[in-house]
Amino acid sequence: MIEDKNQQRTSLSDIGEFGLIDQLTKNFKISQKSSVKGIGDDAAILNFDQKQVVVSTDLLVEGVHFDLSYMPLKHLGYKAIMVNLSDIYAMNAMATQVTVSIAVSNRFPLEALEELYAGVETASQIYNVDVVGGDTTSSTSGLIISVTAIGEVEKGDEVLRSGAKPNDLLVVTGDLGAAYMGLQILEREKEVFKVNPNNQPDLEPYTYIVERQLKPESRKDIVMLLKDLEVKPTSMIDISDGLSSEILHICKQSGVGCDVYENKIPLDPQVISTCEEFNIDSTTVALNGGEDYELLFTISQDDYPKIKANPNFSIIGHIKEPSAGIHLVTRADTRIPMKAQGWKSFED
Amino acid sequence: MIEDKNQQRTSLSDIGEFGLIDQLTKNFKISQKSSVKGIGDDAAILNFDQKQVVVSTDLLVEGVHFDLSYMPLKHLGYKAIMVNLSDIYAMNAMATQVTVSIAVSNRFPLEALEELYAGVETASQIYNVDVVGGDTTSSTSGLIISVTAIGEVEKGDEVLRSGAKPNDLLVVTGDLGAAYMGLQILEREKEVFKVNPNNQPDLEPYTYIVERQLKPESRKDIVMLLKDLEVKPTSMIDISDGLSSEILHICKQSGVGCDVYENKIPLDPQVISTCEEFNIDSTTVALNGGEDYELLFTISQDDYPKIKANPNFSIIGHIKEPSAGIHLVTRADTRIPMKAQGWKSFED
Repeated sequence: MIEDKNQQRTSLSDIGEFGLIDQLTKNFKISQKSSVKGIGDDAAILNFDQKQVVVSTDLLVEGVHFDLSYMPLKHLGYKAIMVNLSDIYAMNAMATQVTVSIAVSNRFPLEALEELYAGVETASQIYNVDVVGGDTTSSTSGLIISVTAIGEVEKGDEVLRSGAKPNDLLVVTGDLGAAYMGLQILEREKEVFKVNPNNQPDLEPYTYIVERQLKPESRKDIVMLLKDLEVKPTSMIDISDGLSSEILHICKQSGVGCDVYENKIPLDPQVISTCEEFNIDSTTVALNGGEDYELLFTISQDDYPKIKANPNFSIIGHIKEPSAGIHLVTRADTRIPMKAQGWKSFED
Repeated sequence: MIEDKNQQRTSLSDIGEFGLIDQLTKNFKISQKSSVKGIGDDAAILNFDQKQVVVSTDLLVEGVHFDLSYMPLKHLGYKAIMVNLSDIYAMNAMATQVTVSIAVSNRFPLEALEELYAGVETASQIYNVDVVGGDTTSSTSGLIISVTAIGEVEKGDEVLRSGAKPNDLLVVTGDLGAAYMGLQILEREKEVFKVNPNNQPDLEPYTYIVERQLKPESRKDIVMLLKDLEVKPTSMIDISDGLSSEILHICKQSGVGCDVYENKIPLDPQVISTCEEFNIDSTTVALNGGEDYELLFTISQDDYPKIKANPNFSIIGHIKEPSAGIHLVTRADTRIPMKAQGWKSFED
């Protein structure tokens, strides 16, 4: 499907490990005030003055989290950064630095890694984070990317998963399920391509959902918007594994119950039409699809006027006493206990 | 050779990804003042007050960095932490936190991961670092461990690779080459075991070098000792890839030359005897073997009296003007230009 048109191939074994990360990142600029020393020593040096530091880390594994037959390497580099920044924003913090490590087999030429790092660079520029460290090594098979994201937050501004209170409103940003349906489209086209390599896929009707899969954005804008609106959520989490599992995390860690209204879950029209085409229930996709990288948070009802007219936010439910349990209230007004199904990578 | 006697096997697919890292780390205690919030949210929260933060990250890949046929998982967990802490100490900083991520195939039962994390826990207790985050995911083959280590250092106390000055003394801690020779012993015994599985290897004469390979320590003690001695090195690096490449790093980044004396390079008697047995030159092993996790640093000659009688330190050379180049002065008093050969993981 998406072919690497770059014909130049410089073997990694010709370069050796020494300095490969330096070479890949040599054009990266340091712009954060907190970055004292970036790549090039045993460790990076950062200085956050009195601010608190937030740290999160994720691994992306070829064949598990991504498929290079339809994921361009540049997009993959971009996405690897997004996945991690999303965790930082979910703390109500601003991301400031990342470290990027890769394990890669000899089948990748240098040019492929340069593509990957071009995506990392683009993401770090747009989101204003510095790449301050990393490691490159060989793998016996496939590509593994490990990113650690670092951010800063004033003491008292951090938002945990554990602060939701009964009567708080449950709010989600953007829309849900698109990344999952984008993946279904890409998987289908891959099968078509296998049968007929000359077939040119028409992805036009699926532009939005395919982009949500291949080039997701993380919601830095929401953290800034909430600050502008003077809204501090009582709890927050990012939606990486699907809405239902994230709701369960907040409820479990806050010790509360919750009602979620099916008809309030935000869906893009392309998600709805593609779900119809695949004969999949769109609510199921929104609840369990994952990879949306939207933010789910709770706010005090007092803050409702500040967010009610804002198209970035959908109020999808409210927090209840723990004894009330955690339910999805369907369009037919039945109450179904909510279970996490999300994405389980250890299943065969 | 080293068999897993633990017969209990709980499949990872029975557990699922959700909460696996929590389960593996549930007994880990938070003891650093700077750890505000550990595992269990989107990100950890740390607070270093006015101190600077240092960050380093490394990937360990099965089949490249370790071989599970002779590396017990508990040792591997321990070593993964050591490798990363070593980078923090090489900044003259104290390690405070780590994040530990693993990608693992379904062939590993939960009990194997618990062994791995037991090693992580032991290391974190002994070195007083908190495990504050991580990720667990499946891999299509093999085991990959990604560790990010975080430390703190007072502003001005950090030591970079770039501060060496002509006439400084070049100092190395401990002894070199043992980890590499330990690996040669383990590889040899593995081959013997393949031929005759009932053969019990006699590792007694190789205890020290095998332990240096399987259970290396990082030199936190040196950072504390240097502070006690009131010696601030002018440059420092950890010896992970072999002495010669680390000397070249310091010289290149400091813009200086160097003379290193072959007869001053510290070798354990077991390294010397095993090198004789394998008919390998022990200097070559010390220069290029790697995985020693000792510290290499330069000090002003004024500080010589403070370290001269200390058995932890060997003065192996001195820094010269850049025009002098970088040379090994052999026992026969010939000067050989020094080249990095170290470990190149991308070679077939």
